Amino acid sequence: MAVTVVGSIAYDAVRTPFGARERMLGGAATHFALAASFFDEVRVVGPVGDDFAPQDMEVLRARGTLVDDVERVPGGRTFFWAGEYHDNLNRRETLTTELNVFEHFEPKLSAAAQEAEVVFLANIQPELQLDVRRQCTAARFVAMDSMNLWINIARQALERTIRSVDCLLLNDEELEQLTGAPNTPAAAEELLGWGLKAVVAKQGKYGAALYTPEGFFAVPAYPLARVVDPTGAGDTFAGGLVGYVAASGAEEPTLDVLATAMAYGTALASYNVEAFGTERVAVLTADEVFDRVIALRRMTAFEAPALALRG
Amino acid sequence: MAVTVVGSIAYDAVRTPFGARERMLGGAATHFALAASFFDEVRVVGPVGDDFAPQDMEVLRARGTLVDDVERVPGGRTFFWAGEYHDNLNRRETLTTELNVFEHFEPKLSAAAQEAEVVFLANIQPELQLDVRRQCTAARFVAMDSMNLWINIARQALERTIRSVDCLLLNDEELEQLTGAPNTPAAAEELLGWGLKAVVAKQGKYGAALYTPEGFFAVPAYPLARVVDPTGAGDTFAGGLVGYVAASGAEEPTLDVLATAMAYGTALASYNVEAFGTERVAVLTADEVFDRVIALRRMTAFEAPALALRG
Repeated sequence: MAVTVVGSIAYDAVRTPFGARERMLGGAATHFALAASFFDEVRVVGPVGDDFAPQDMEVLRARGTLVDDVERVPGGRTFFWAGEYHDNLNRRETLTTELNVFEHFEPKLSAAAQEAEVVFLANIQPELQLDVRRQCTAARFVAMDSMNLWINIARQALERTIRSVDCLLLNDEELEQLTGAPNTPAAAEELLGWGLKAVVAKQGKYGAALYTPEGFFAVPAYPLARVVDPTGAGDTFAGGLVGYVAASGAEEPTLDVLATAMAYGTALASYNVEAFGTERVAVLTADEVFDRVIALRRMTAFEAPALALRG
Repeated sequence: MAVTVVGSIAYDAVRTPFGARERMLGGAATHFALAASFFDEVRVVGPVGDDFAPQDMEVLRARGTLVDDVERVPGGRTFFWAGEYHDNLNRRETLTTELNVFEHFEPKLSAAAQEAEVVFLANIQPELQLDVRRQCTAARFVAMDSMNLWINIARQALERTIRSVDCLLLNDEELEQLTGAPNTPAAAEELLGWGLKAVVAKQGKYGAALYTPEGFFAVPAYPLARVVDPTGAGDTFAGGLVGYVAASGAEEPTLDVLATAMAYGTALASYNVEAFGTERVAVLTADEVFDRVIALRRMTAFEAPALALRG
């Protein structure tokens, strides 16, 4: 029972206050797969160009990721993104987005990819996400990401796609933009009304919050005095979260399962930002992941002794 | 053993998307005292004018707050602040600040106020905070708030004052501005080097984080789909936090004590924002406070089962 992820495999050019990379392995599916590979087999679906280097495919393979469904487009070039971080990493500027092989991407999943019980639809056009969703007929848990661009230019398709999945991950501002709600709890309430079983609000350096019909859960970001490159943190978080749900084997993940999944996602994302691109997670060990989950538990636990309050 | 708080007692004019008040009881010391009064006796030190209404003094007295040290300035007018919230409460615009009786305020603490073991220096000029700090010779735990204004125009005095207290509460951006550190964990690390025993980063709708030499703790804001007026939330949070530390009786609060204190502060702040000014907290019950602390514990707890991760 592998996890299927559909999304970008990319080359990124990134500049942060701590350095730069001209052409590093990136993409939502890549970051997701590296993180989720700690929990289950991961099958990556997405296109690359002729320029995609064998050693980059090896980065995925080295963590056991199944790459049979990576489509190499003859004569095509791999998706390319260039960006720069400003204001102590609080602001990201996109310099270039070259869709390249993604421009005419039509996901054709192999039988094995279609049989996945757990699926992640990384941030691509909502129509393509819906197409993949429909091909995955055996799925018991489908999660998706998206972005403000699709809310702006493809809202109807996005809403249809959201209504076909179990779990939506978005930045908190995007959840508010999508629903028109004045705050994230109100936005999540609205979206649970669409039939979602879980809404995850990504809050960057503040952590993440989870809304389900069963209740609310929140986990802070793991505190790091040195963050080198936030690129891919959201997808790494999703990989940990969705990977843990897959490994849990639960038919329908409970709030408790999803809460632990959020902690694993947070731990993995914290490693991701310690170095450029995939550099840290590619060499990460299972013990290191578990250590930060335990640390996060300690950092959020508190006693509530029955105090005689002055009423 | 009462808690002494020094700070503003004010009238506020506030406009939010949910309504407006022309002249409501406010001020940092007021919000702090109402919250801290659930845990211990609170003695308020601060000036008011002739215009300060008896029924507003009753709001404080009704929760057992000691007001003997509230100085009524003959011929003076009470501190007045007017502000408006925009962008779904995410942005606050100050329309008017009339210092009035605060312009020439020189805190003269009574013997009883000076004997407090726990002291809160609400956001006023750092020189005045330091003056009060020195008057409180019996204090075992002194916490303080401040704001970007004093970082900009009175940095040296602010730094001296911070070095004289045990616990600093600031917004996360202010912690970064104060230290020049690129993020909050780095800022807190720097400030712990100044001798502080605790640094609290207030994160608004995201919650709050605590840094001590013993470790890190974070608690999310209690999720509310309807927030009416955020005015005073930070001081209400501080009142719950410092009040709990006072009630705990600990000679030096441990990370565990401070963590629970953070949860009480968060619970109290969540009630504060449900209505204008002091309207909600003035009628709050101890059971309601405890209920939200328990709810917050449930909303942040997770299991970390020993999972066979794929290394």
